[in-house]
Amino acid sequence: MDNFIFKSPTKIIFGRGTEELVGEEVKQYSKKILLHYGGGSIKRTGLYDKVVNSLKKAGVEFIELPGAQPNPRLSLVREGIKICRENGIDFILAVGGGSAIDSAKAIAVGVPYEGDVWDFYAGKAVPEKALPLGVILTLAATGSEASKSSVITNEDGWYKRGLNVDIIRPQFAIMNPELTFTLPPYQTSCGVADIMAHIMERYFTNTRNVELTDRLCEATLKTVIHNAPIVLKDPENYAARAEIMWAGTIAHNDLLSTGRIGDWSSHAIEHELSAIYDIAHGAGLAIVFPAWMKYVYKHDINRFVQFAVRVWDVDMNFENPEETALEGIKRLEDFFRSIGLPVRLSEINISDDRFEEMADKATNRGQKTVGQFVQLGREDIINIYNLAK
Amino acid sequence: MDNFIFKSPTKIIFGRGTEELVGEEVKQYSKKILLHYGGGSIKRTGLYDKVVNSLKKAGVEFIELPGAQPNPRLSLVREGIKICRENGIDFILAVGGGSAIDSAKAIAVGVPYEGDVWDFYAGKAVPEKALPLGVILTLAATGSEASKSSVITNEDGWYKRGLNVDIIRPQFAIMNPELTFTLPPYQTSCGVADIMAHIMERYFTNTRNVELTDRLCEATLKTVIHNAPIVLKDPENYAARAEIMWAGTIAHNDLLSTGRIGDWSSHAIEHELSAIYDIAHGAGLAIVFPAWMKYVYKHDINRFVQFAVRVWDVDMNFENPEETALEGIKRLEDFFRSIGLPVRLSEINISDDRFEEMADKATNRGQKTVGQFVQLGREDIINIYNLAK
Repeated sequence: MDNFIFKSPTKIIFGRGTEELVGEEVKQYSKKILLHYGGGSIKRTGLYDKVVNSLKKAGVEFIELPGAQPNPRLSLVREGIKICRENGIDFILAVGGGSAIDSAKAIAVGVPYEGDVWDFYAGKAVPEKALPLGVILTLAATGSEASKSSVITNEDGWYKRGLNVDIIRPQFAIMNPELTFTLPPYQTSCGVADIMAHIMERYFTNTRNVELTDRLCEATLKTVIHNAPIVLKDPENYAARAEIMWAGTIAHNDLLSTGRIGDWSSHAIEHELSAIYDIAHGAGLAIVFPAWMKYVYKHDINRFVQFAVRVWDVDMNFENPEETALEGIKRLEDFFRSIGLPVRLSEINISDDRFEEMADKATNRGQKTVGQFVQLGREDIINIYNLAK
Repeated sequence: MDNFIFKSPTKIIFGRGTEELVGEEVKQYSKKILLHYGGGSIKRTGLYDKVVNSLKKAGVEFIELPGAQPNPRLSLVREGIKICRENGIDFILAVGGGSAIDSAKAIAVGVPYEGDVWDFYAGKAVPEKALPLGVILTLAATGSEASKSSVITNEDGWYKRGLNVDIIRPQFAIMNPELTFTLPPYQTSCGVADIMAHIMERYFTNTRNVELTDRLCEATLKTVIHNAPIVLKDPENYAARAEIMWAGTIAHNDLLSTGRIGDWSSHAIEHELSAIYDIAHGAGLAIVFPAWMKYVYKHDINRFVQFAVRVWDVDMNFENPEETALEGIKRLEDFFRSIGLPVRLSEINISDDRFEEMADKATNRGQKTVGQFVQLGREDIINIYNLAK
């Protein structure tokens, strides 16, 4: 186990009806906020009215910034920064999924910064200050509600880049599983893949003696795997929605990475896909992760055997552990397929004509590698895209 | 899953050499602190010198209050409160195990309170303010380093009572597994029993649909069960000490109770034992918990079957699940015995002559019940003491 520092202070307010508490929660921080959300879905479901009423009741003024979209855009972030500055706003409430939250986080670090907010995502500067923010989550997926991560897409070149700093962890996250009842099945499944990917990125590590976090990862994966088919059959199953929603937070609040170094190459490889093709991140991960596994499993067959046996209940083949490892990868791929996700690029009509361009972007034209479990160069990434064809 | 609020903001600073960071950490809060610890062990091991040097280097003044002992006493708490008030101290650093930390928490709520600090433990008042505190942990057991709990013994009548409020969660916990290398085997085992009890108190619940937290509980229990014999054989095994230490925090920071109502009767029943006989809390739990299980398991056999199969890898008896449930309880008892703990009161020379007195105290002379999984009255508690004879 490596030395680590862990602090995940987000106040989780979980359960039925909790969105009604938002006004009381927000007013502890500010009386004038930016209300940031996506499109019309929160208006259709009635959530928007509940939030607005709760804010008004608590005497909280708000200026709205709708328009957050999947793979959230830098241009909207810049607009949010401008609104906050011009109106002396010092708190941001994001209502939605990872897109609204990641976008809110970018606004939060952008407002007190004199330079261009993209500096933080391009790795040219590290933010030292951030406005506090709160979240009402409507989608179990990115774990952004309690994470230190934000991923933004720069339309100028379609670069999708992440920022990871503790100061952007939300102050509170209101999580009512009922708010996820109306999600279309495909989005639910993409969320499931994203949650599982967050765990698997941490699970595949070269750090030894990480038994507790291994087991916590396995516990969280098994819970998601068990409950995903239930919510697809029965979208208003509160219990199963709740398990997935809470698992989504645990998957990415860094508890599961304490004392270990995760991999994260599948995320890097996927980000290039969704930046160019604007596909759902979770769908991209369902395609990339099994291909990545097939490419790297020989680096540590035992770890893939453990994954197969403990997560997928594969019967251990003691005479041929490699077969067990491969069966685990197959089960993952079969699972993604069973919940309606693509597992090959061809299934979403992506051909091989931009593999080199994406590998170039992921590695800064071959100047750097991605991944920690196995460090992958430009050629490796092209090979993985080919395995995912 | 029940609605819940979860916030566990303690900054965990984990790993080799981390005690050297204490001065830098403390000075973010205060330049004049109470340094609270137990007896001579931190002086023998050299930890005391390291802490003092680090504080001095950071320019932090300190007044010392040694003397925290197992089942920490109210009189020392009162002394600490007096010292803090007389010297304008606004931060407490506890160095030690649960006793020093629980005692520091009591001082922390006592200083800003005009009445008697025991009011909080007797349930006569709820603290609204607390001094901030930090911890250097030297014993994996109580989980107090990140919990909202403090247990104090009032020598006037030997009442042992707990306080549970979020404001006493430490600001930071420095956790170096090496600091636990010198623990005697018996104390190590008592710590293991305490950690397991914290998880099991949460595990045995009537709340349905708590799959994720069930699995996280099982993961943490399995880790502790696996690593306990390793550290008993090889006390300086860093990896195994680290697993147990981190598990001890997770066991009691409330992550494992999110969305569910735990039982906590074994703790209440044990507290009467250790208050009167001054035995180690962990040893008392090793005696009480199996007896409690034997007394209540029929209330929900399936839950005990799950415990047996998932935690103890008992082969499921599909024709007779009750046998599986009982085998799980037996495995727990065998495990405690295997790590050198008593599992019967007679083994620590406690006879049955004060069972009624203890049951009276636990239930306020039969006026109330203890436990949530099964609500136990005075007679039930006497029956459990008898099962533990």
